[in-house]
Amino acid sequence: MTLARPFLSDNAAAVHPKLWEAMRAADHPDNPYDGDTLSQQLDARFTALFGRECAALWVATGTAANCLALATMCAPHGGVVCHREAHIEVDEGGAPGFFLHGAKLMLADGAGAKLTPQDIAALIDPIRNDVHQVQPHAIAITQASEYGCTYRPEELADLGAFAKARRLGLHMDGARFANAAGFLGGSAEDAARAASGPVDSLAFGFIKNGGMGAEAVVLFDPDAAMQVRYRRKRAGHLQCKGRYLAAQILAMLEDDLWLANARHANAAAQEVAAGCGERLLHPVEANELFVRLTPAEREALRAQDFAFYDWGADSARFVTAWNTKPEDAQALGKAIAAL
Amino acid sequence: MTLARPFLSDNAAAVHPKLWEAMRAADHPDNPYDGDTLSQQLDARFTALFGRECAALWVATGTAANCLALATMCAPHGGVVCHREAHIEVDEGGAPGFFLHGAKLMLADGAGAKLTPQDIAALIDPIRNDVHQVQPHAIAITQASEYGCTYRPEELADLGAFAKARRLGLHMDGARFANAAGFLGGSAEDAARAASGPVDSLAFGFIKNGGMGAEAVVLFDPDAAMQVRYRRKRAGHLQCKGRYLAAQILAMLEDDLWLANARHANAAAQEVAAGCGERLLHPVEANELFVRLTPAEREALRAQDFAFYDWGADSARFVTAWNTKPEDAQALGKAIAAL
Amino acid sequence: MTLARPFLSDNAAAVHPKLWEAMRAADHPDNPYDGDTLSQQLDARFTALFGRECAALWVATGTAANCLALATMCAPHGGVVCHREAHIEVDEGGAPGFFLHGAKLMLADGAGAKLTPQDIAALIDPIRNDVHQVQPHAIAITQASEYGCTYRPEELADLGAFAKARRLGLHMDGARFANAAGFLGGSAEDAARAASGPVDSLAFGFIKNGGMGAEAVVLFDPDAAMQVRYRRKRAGHLQCKGRYLAAQILAMLEDDLWLANARHANAAAQEVAAGCGERLLHPVEANELFVRLTPAEREALRAQDFAFYDWGADSARFVTAWNTKPEDAQALGKAIAAL
Amino acid sequence: MTLARPFLSDNAAAVHPKLWEAMRAADHPDNPYDGDTLSQQLDARFTALFGRECAALWVATGTAANCLALATMCAPHGGVVCHREAHIEVDEGGAPGFFLHGAKLMLADGAGAKLTPQDIAALIDPIRNDVHQVQPHAIAITQASEYGCTYRPEELADLGAFAKARRLGLHMDGARFANAAGFLGGSAEDAARAASGPVDSLAFGFIKNGGMGAEAVVLFDPDAAMQVRYRRKRAGHLQCKGRYLAAQILAMLEDDLWLANARHANAAAQEVAAGCGERLLHPVEANELFVRLTPAEREALRAQDFAFYDWGADSARFVTAWNTKPEDAQALGKAIAAL
Repeated sequence: MTLARPFLSDNAAAVHPKLWEAMRAADHPDNPYDGDTLSQQLDARFTALFGRECAALWVATGTAANCLALATMCAPHGGVVCHREAHIEVDEGGAPGFFLHGAKLMLADGAGAKLTPQDIAALIDPIRNDVHQVQPHAIAITQASEYGCTYRPEELADLGAFAKARRLGLHMDGARFANAAGFLGGSAEDAARAASGPVDSLAFGFIKNGGMGAEAVVLFDPDAAMQVRYRRKRAGHLQCKGRYLAAQILAMLEDDLWLANARHANAAAQEVAAGCGERLLHPVEANELFVRLTPAEREALRAQDFAFYDWGADSARFVTAWNTKPEDAQALGKAIAAL
Repeated sequence: MTLARPFLSDNAAAVHPKLWEAMRAADHPDNPYDGDTLSQQLDARFTALFGRECAALWVATGTAANCLALATMCAPHGGVVCHREAHIEVDEGGAPGFFLHGAKLMLADGAGAKLTPQDIAALIDPIRNDVHQVQPHAIAITQASEYGCTYRPEELADLGAFAKARRLGLHMDGARFANAAGFLGGSAEDAARAASGPVDSLAFGFIKNGGMGAEAVVLFDPDAAMQVRYRRKRAGHLQCKGRYLAAQILAMLEDDLWLANARHANAAAQEVAAGCGERLLHPVEANELFVRLTPAEREALRAQDFAFYDWGADSARFVTAWNTKPEDAQALGKAIAAL
Repeated sequence: MTLARPFLSDNAAAVHPKLWEAMRAADHPDNPYDGDTLSQQLDARFTALFGRECAALWVATGTAANCLALATMCAPHGGVVCHREAHIEVDEGGAPGFFLHGAKLMLADGAGAKLTPQDIAALIDPIRNDVHQVQPHAIAITQASEYGCTYRPEELADLGAFAKARRLGLHMDGARFANAAGFLGGSAEDAARAASGPVDSLAFGFIKNGGMGAEAVVLFDPDAAMQVRYRRKRAGHLQCKGRYLAAQILAMLEDDLWLANARHANAAAQEVAAGCGERLLHPVEANELFVRLTPAEREALRAQDFAFYDWGADSARFVTAWNTKPEDAQALGKAIAAL
Repeated sequence: MTLARPFLSDNAAAVHPKLWEAMRAADHPDNPYDGDTLSQQLDARFTALFGRECAALWVATGTAANCLALATMCAPHGGVVCHREAHIEVDEGGAPGFFLHGAKLMLADGAGAKLTPQDIAALIDPIRNDVHQVQPHAIAITQASEYGCTYRPEELADLGAFAKARRLGLHMDGARFANAAGFLGGSAEDAARAASGPVDSLAFGFIKNGGMGAEAVVLFDPDAAMQVRYRRKRAGHLQCKGRYLAAQILAMLEDDLWLANARHANAAAQEVAAGCGERLLHPVEANELFVRLTPAEREALRAQDFAFYDWGADSARFVTAWNTKPEDAQALGKAIAAL
């Protein structure tokens, strides 16, 4: 039997060996919750990475990371602007409604699942400034976007200026932040800063990038950070053996493993992209590909053991991961080209 | 430097080697979330253990486990009766208020942090049956209790009958369920059934018993189980690599490791108890001891490298764990006896 | 100075003299809240009107009426399907998010702001049946619709069958229910039953129809009724001098005043409609008209003292009320025809 | 048949004639919601009364008034300190849990249902400053208290200083604020200022004092006021014919009717008190009396047509109102004295 060549998702990939090592190294008694020596290092490590003061708290899922951050910038009677296809709208089971106590997601349109100030203004400018209509309190963007597109630093600067002018919080869902940073290039610090721009908070994803069960909520506002500490506990997300989560994150930061993993995945995506030509629905700027493929073509690819999801009736989604074999990626690119 | 002899808590102890093995064995691609082969085994395994149909879902914390279960049996406008010193009231950062959308905890008194039907009736009988007063919808008990006391099967039967008569749900916080089961004795099945009695739901704790970050919400009502599946996602508790949580739990069930670990801890507690005599504030029926000790006596113990928490002005709490060294427990018992 | 001829809205019209009389007649001590003799009559009176067992509770606003009813049929993790332009989505300040604890409004499209089973199926059929996506729990329709269109009995029957087949609750926002009933014709009983069809709950509006501050939540499910009694109190909507609200509602039911008022308003709307011809954007089936009018035309009407709201760039909305003067309505119709 | 002499409660008394007049005078079209000329006067009128800038919004119930104000000063993860017998804890059906999204009421003890800084400190000082325990965010006091006791200006000053030092909001439930102000004496301005002290918000009750269905939420913090405007709408409490509520409140302020009504009720209470002597459980400082009376004594009073509630097994509560007949009050005092 041939083993499947997996391009289904990066969210179920194996855990990176360095993280196993780090977790095992943490396997001795320490203070519970986030009082341990590892968790206590997070703020400083992320402050160094981003070059501005921040707090960083581990949580087990991106959903929790996003929602905890958003709850600090949107009151229950307010709204969060996001893309119509944003993960928080489409795939988080209504979590924002729960964490934000009924606040509303306000759905904007934008190419490649990215948003521009113009896209957002088109949505919120018609809202009457009265109590009958929910007012926007925050913006949530996704980096890389749900279609694998990466915001450039200048795009983020524009969004930041817009958010500031409108007094809106700006949050970044970074489930694949590493892939976006990797795409933008440079040192780890340069890449992280370029990819995050002037956001108020970032859900920095590690799980899709070789982690087991730890993401970081990065908060550039100290008041928000304090609030998230309480809200994390209240949401049942303060694990008592938090050191195993901190260990994963620190191992990711060590020697820029997070960036190396992401670049590996990105490179694999480019290998695939090389075979896709006009079939690509979106530019490949991270580790996801959306490819126009007929049902018959998809069948042909699956017959060659490539595993992936359909994306609507006429296309497919391919995702590469930190451990995608280059030869699999090349083979896939060639197989598509040969269709 | 002498290493501390730790009796602070079981919540920060190391992870059992069998669980590490099981997690590593799960380190290959599988379906995400709870679609993997391990997660899919949980319902059957717990059904076999408890001898009645149930669903079992992993979550990362006991707080989440308790609150997800309670939310199925108490409407937002209702109340949950619990002991005044229950963990959900005192130490979960208001999590029930979050998960139950503002439902009220109704605080009853009872010896050893346990509740009897009489204790509960004394609290709820005076409540006027009108809309101005919050009506009780459920009861939450803790097994073993916050003072390390274990409900006996007949006590649970009484509570079950009372809950049924009053049309109240009955939930068990089992952060130290294994220790209670271990105290009651018998085979794993006998012990589990005796310790759980007729509850509607159980937060079955593994983390304090050698786990890393996985508890099981066990739901004996299929409707509640379906609801918890949705609510778990909505609360950001559906981890995408859930197989590592399932692996921990299955390893615990394998060869009754959960019970062996608990009995080890319980035995250590009895070693300590042997030296405490009249100093004990509560009977030792699990792995916690509450011991009357003056400040000077506590200082003397700490000078011998015993680590533990003060409990009010005149006593201390000692907790044993799956990996407490028997010699440490004996030494502690002797040290207390020698005071 | 010429007095304005008001077609702005029915929501600020004066209170009907019969209601003043009824309130004054209630101005003596009675039991507080809804224990008074007037409030106690509501269930029976509405049961007689609708010909099926129901409970009827007063509340001060349509927003509260809608949301209290919806909260009985949609769990916090579920969704309520409504029209994209429904009042609960557009103009209630996020109230459903508050009362339903973060449940989601799911926005369907449909002609005239009405929904058909096909419209709803188009929205909900693509929803994956998994925990990542919010599942629909209920449908909310508006009778008459936000564009003044009235559901016919057979349309309601279809929606009822669809809701039942999909196990969805069916709620009717009846802010202008009387106008819809009046449009459908027949005796008060016939009209009420035809206009409500098989809904599970109805927010029966009186305020826009000559009331002061009382609407009725009508619940055809006894369990839902009990829940609403508690939720009404919890939402601060149980007024202690509730007899003044009950008095308004009973006065409305007396001699079918509600229907007479609505028919008066509907007739006035038809007078206006007679002059609108092709300008009408929607059929006039209640007391609202949406009329294509250029800015210059609107200016010309306002110069003749007609007061009304713009509706987008190229049209206007006119609303008639229980006390619209027939001569004003005729004058407006002629003025539009003369443009 | 003799008519009952009612001392049950002030919450169901008739509406004062001046308010009927004012409501009728408002019975012409005006802007909806709070855009009408009456509602627009409230801020200025209350600012003049209290001598400091404030916003004043009408709502239909004291429960809504209290909870809307509290929601501005206590985050969902925080707590509100109140007396164990406070109305918000005992008799509002869990409304604070709803409006504050699950925040916790923290129950303090204090004589006469009043709280001192010492009472509050005794409750909150033992709370650990960590995320596992809910932290207090605000204090709610009741003026006059649930036992008819009135805070003196110096007591309020102490509470204000304490709240400020602890960074806690300070809210006053003023369901019977007028009675407290009346008790303290002086002009309307002096009495209002003395009775409110340095609170951040006040639920100024009118309904128990001759109103129909309007209370004022008075907010001395402009940010809180803006928030309440949105939250009021979201809670379904923004009535479209708000002018009838504003009319009630303005009529109450006109010629200090609110104070005259309260003083009438207070005087009647003193008439009753004159006959109670040692039977009084609390000093009579407003319009409520709690009187030690055996069941037989209560029966004897009821045989004389006095209507009132039992208060526990051995006492009774008597409440006077704006329209209590002086002869009834005197008769009750004498009847009690004669027992």
